[in-house]
Amino acid sequence: MKGVCFLVTVALMALASSLASASDPSPLQDTCVAIDEPKDAGLDKPGNTSNTVASNVTTVNVEQIKGLNTLGISMVRIDYEPYGQNPPHTHPHPRATEILTVLEGTLYVGFVTSNPENRLISKVLYKGDVFVFPTGLIHFQFNVGKTNAVAIAGLSSQNPGVITIANAVFGSDPPINADVLTRAFQLDKNVVNYLQSRF
Amino acid sequence: MKGVCFLVTVALMALASSLASASDPSPLQDTCVAIDEPKDAGLDKPGNTSNTVASNVTTVNVEQIKGLNTLGISMVRIDYEPYGQNPPHTHPHPRATEILTVLEGTLYVGFVTSNPENRLISKVLYKGDVFVFPTGLIHFQFNVGKTNAVAIAGLSSQNPGVITIANAVFGSDPPINADVLTRAFQLDKNVVNYLQSRF
Amino acid sequence: MKGVCFLVTVALMALASSLASASDPSPLQDTCVAIDEPKDAGLDKPGNTSNTVASNVTTVNVEQIKGLNTLGISMVRIDYEPYGQNPPHTHPHPRATEILTVLEGTLYVGFVTSNPENRLISKVLYKGDVFVFPTGLIHFQFNVGKTNAVAIAGLSSQNPGVITIANAVFGSDPPINADVLTRAFQLDKNVVNYLQSRF
Amino acid sequence: MKGVCFLVTVALMALASSLASASDPSPLQDTCVAIDEPKDAGLDKPGNTSNTVASNVTTVNVEQIKGLNTLGISMVRIDYEPYGQNPPHTHPHPRATEILTVLEGTLYVGFVTSNPENRLISKVLYKGDVFVFPTGLIHFQFNVGKTNAVAIAGLSSQNPGVITIANAVFGSDPPINADVLTRAFQLDKNVVNYLQSRF
Amino acid sequence: MKGVCFLVTVALMALASSLASASDPSPLQDTCVAIDEPKDAGLDKPGNTSNTVASNVTTVNVEQIKGLNTLGISMVRIDYEPYGQNPPHTHPHPRATEILTVLEGTLYVGFVTSNPENRLISKVLYKGDVFVFPTGLIHFQFNVGKTNAVAIAGLSSQNPGVITIANAVFGSDPPINADVLTRAFQLDKNVVNYLQSRF
Amino acid sequence: MKGVCFLVTVALMALASSLASASDPSPLQDTCVAIDEPKDAGLDKPGNTSNTVASNVTTVNVEQIKGLNTLGISMVRIDYEPYGQNPPHTHPHPRATEILTVLEGTLYVGFVTSNPENRLISKVLYKGDVFVFPTGLIHFQFNVGKTNAVAIAGLSSQNPGVITIANAVFGSDPPINADVLTRAFQLDKNVVNYLQSRF
Repeated sequence: MKGVCFLVTVALMALASSLASASDPSPLQDTCVAIDEPKDAGLDKPGNTSNTVASNVTTVNVEQIKGLNTLGISMVRIDYEPYGQNPPHTHPHPRATEILTVLEGTLYVGFVTSNPENRLISKVLYKGDVFVFPTGLIHFQFNVGKTNAVAIAGLSSQNPGVITIANAVFGSDPPINADVLTRAFQLDKNVVNYLQSRF
Repeated sequence: MKGVCFLVTVALMALASSLASASDPSPLQDTCVAIDEPKDAGLDKPGNTSNTVASNVTTVNVEQIKGLNTLGISMVRIDYEPYGQNPPHTHPHPRATEILTVLEGTLYVGFVTSNPENRLISKVLYKGDVFVFPTGLIHFQFNVGKTNAVAIAGLSSQNPGVITIANAVFGSDPPINADVLTRAFQLDKNVVNYLQSRF
Repeated sequence: MKGVCFLVTVALMALASSLASASDPSPLQDTCVAIDEPKDAGLDKPGNTSNTVASNVTTVNVEQIKGLNTLGISMVRIDYEPYGQNPPHTHPHPRATEILTVLEGTLYVGFVTSNPENRLISKVLYKGDVFVFPTGLIHFQFNVGKTNAVAIAGLSSQNPGVITIANAVFGSDPPINADVLTRAFQLDKNVVNYLQSRF
Repeated sequence: MKGVCFLVTVALMALASSLASASDPSPLQDTCVAIDEPKDAGLDKPGNTSNTVASNVTTVNVEQIKGLNTLGISMVRIDYEPYGQNPPHTHPHPRATEILTVLEGTLYVGFVTSNPENRLISKVLYKGDVFVFPTGLIHFQFNVGKTNAVAIAGLSSQNPGVITIANAVFGSDPPINADVLTRAFQLDKNVVNYLQSRF
Repeated sequence: MKGVCFLVTVALMALASSLASASDPSPLQDTCVAIDEPKDAGLDKPGNTSNTVASNVTTVNVEQIKGLNTLGISMVRIDYEPYGQNPPHTHPHPRATEILTVLEGTLYVGFVTSNPENRLISKVLYKGDVFVFPTGLIHFQFNVGKTNAVAIAGLSSQNPGVITIANAVFGSDPPINADVLTRAFQLDKNVVNYLQSRF
Repeated sequence: MKGVCFLVTVALMALASSLASASDPSPLQDTCVAIDEPKDAGLDKPGNTSNTVASNVTTVNVEQIKGLNTLGISMVRIDYEPYGQNPPHTHPHPRATEILTVLEGTLYVGFVTSNPENRLISKVLYKGDVFVFPTGLIHFQFNVGKTNAVAIAGLSSQNPGVITIANAVFGSDPPINADVLTRAFQLDKNVVNYLQSRF
């Protein structure tokens, strides 16, 4: 039985990595328990924040834990250096609301509502505070404290996906026609070209 | 009966305009047929494109047609001047995939996949062509022809919502802390301040 | 990667054409972008209306456009000769509400609510008007103008299905026992036999 | 508490009887237990079959049993005289598949698949047999035995709705334009007029 | 065509029996009609009640009837000797509400609401009565009459699953650490050990 | 606007506390932002574990944070004394899978699959480890270390509900007929009576 389950799991993970056909179903079975030895998830260990935004997201997914498949939930640990940020992003897949609590440090967090209000809902969070980022909205966290910050978040999808706004807009492959971005962002074309070379 | 239905409809429309509690249910009834005289939808008439992006979206919603409530679909007409665009945006509410066909003109359209690929899928569409923008992804249309362009699109939600990326990021009310945007977009702080003053 | 995706796509399309196992899932991936060259959808071209109902439905499906799989939406163009009709039918699959706008001509359209009211909700639509046919209900369009008519419609399912009432009732293969239809429709048995020979 | 629940239940039942706004949600609460005295459902008693189709459907709904609200299931008992039938009909609301078992007698049952096959799947059922009518498809039962027949069925919706095809097509209020039905059913206009006068 | 469908059906049934990946989708196709000869379901025949709880559940599933796949409903017949019971259990899979009617005998039935009330909703049911067990709650039926009892129930899932509480808690394989159960149930450790040896 | 939103929020919270009519919808609006001052969630503070199971669950719900309504996610902090436990329980509402990570201490955790296997899937978790409890299954955590333990968990429902097995079975109000429990758990009737007096 274990062999069969393994084969199917492999097929599903292949689908999950590269294809449009994977779905977010309600489970009709309890769980798949054939993968014997989960690797340690290690959510107690800081991630590597040596990057342009000085933060790191450690994701717990189907490779680390038993039975995550079809269950519609996932968890992340986020580390931030002082002034580091999890930059403005969305989770594009349905049912990807995020609930976050601060384990260490001080975070300025927020999200922006849709047109026409584009209202910013933000708050400074201290250790033990909780905040919710509603599904589909652009949101961010920014470490406004003088020490490292750590947060744990749950997301109501087993594969919420991430669209980092700056990367998707200015760093797509191939790049979006610069005329589109120049007018949409009311930027000088040289600035758009510069940004497209950076991301 | 008509009076009762009207009252409830008013309550639902109030919810739909301003509150988090409106949902996207499967219908348990056929339809609500108490609103007697729908206004003309007028999707044959061009919208007013005198704005910074030189385009206009005319939305058909529950005020114009009978029975749209609970049915999970809506329709738009989009007009574009030459070089006008429907700028990069997302539809944040679940089940808001968009299918678009070109009635007049030539559109360069595209969407960008999520991290880490951020792949741009784009195409030039001529009259009669059809394209799909998957739910949650950043997408745009740009009139690359020398004449006005017109498109009709269906969206699989009765209230898909719209987040215009540039407006949500640089034009939120109140503004996002400029330090966040400076680092996230790798822009000079003066450019961020300038952009925040424009949107 | 493209090869793998193609194979899976083929498998899914096979499922979609002939089997009960295809589902209407929420997407867990952005899209499948391996099919390189979509055929032209050609929604600008009239369909062939030389048939008993003098109308034609041109459907845009997964063969013509990228990434339609899992996205829960589709689009059709309907052409009608004068006095042609899209005869009474339903869309049996869930989430198959239809929103229609008239591009050319004049249509008398309607749907009938369920028991016990069986109320007909109908309207004459002119160019630019919009109407919604709620999921599951019997509906039709009839060209009451003196010129050809054209409509575009969006449906909130990637495979809504169609049941043409007259064909399903009188033209099934094998035929329904004539005793059933004689009593159900209160028709003379000779009329039922005649109808069964026509469809 | 009981009073409050009663009031809300009344409001919900009002919605359920006449409006489009009632939905088919997943429950967020266990149940509503404030209605103290359910009437006897009486599924052991034959219904009155003195009608044109010589059959009767007894429905168990929210008035007879506690907590049916939001739970997405219902049950019916169907009685048939010899040669009586539950005439061709559909259940228009989503998730309204029907599973039926025969308690007494012999039934010829069937459903017709959608276009273009319109294939009839039928079977003669004896006491203890079970059959499934898939959501959205036209189906019927016909008592081909010489004694009364009785069936029990479960439906996966708390309000599946019923569209009796003959009544919806020929008996709507107001009637569908006879020109539409004449061509759609390839009937003589006199026959259509006759049918419209009967239903 | 039949061969292909059979192969896929086999694959799906394999998934359904042993894996986490099977889902509870909305159907995108009408039905799968390639399995020609359904076995008789035999819901008219009593099940074998010679067991510790003196009851038997006969389940109708995809092996006995055409087209059950993807349709989200199933049916059971339950037989009870005098003082026999369907012991406290839950249905763990989503959309598994149960609606039950008594064909013969007298049943004391009930369910318990969730924390903190843990309210028992119970009723004595006679022939023809109907009761609903809401999804997820612990429920039971107990034959309090002096003759055998028979019930028919519909469940709004094609695979609702069953967790018999006593077996899951005291009879799991391997057993739950007795220290957990001793404190949770406030039982003497010897009683826990005795129970674990029985189940 | 704030006043209106507040009133509706009150109504929704009333529904959420006591009625069956609250649902778990997909959001059609971004969020409700009218509640100005969320109380501190305080997930950094240990809960009071002076109770029979020596553990405590601190739940973050709609009263503490903005916009939780309709968003389908919640978070808990669980504290355990040495040998304390979160006793065997289920979450009855749909989409209530739980993902848990250990912040401090050592936990023996597990869940039991449904009939007929009733397989126990268990693991000893150390700081930073993650585990998933699938929706609907009986599960528990037990502090097997010599120091206090702390865990954070996300649940994919805004109101998952809790059924503590021992309390629901032996402590319902009114109590379940002791004859049912005696046979179901194969206990002496005196033991059942004793247990019913304790819970």
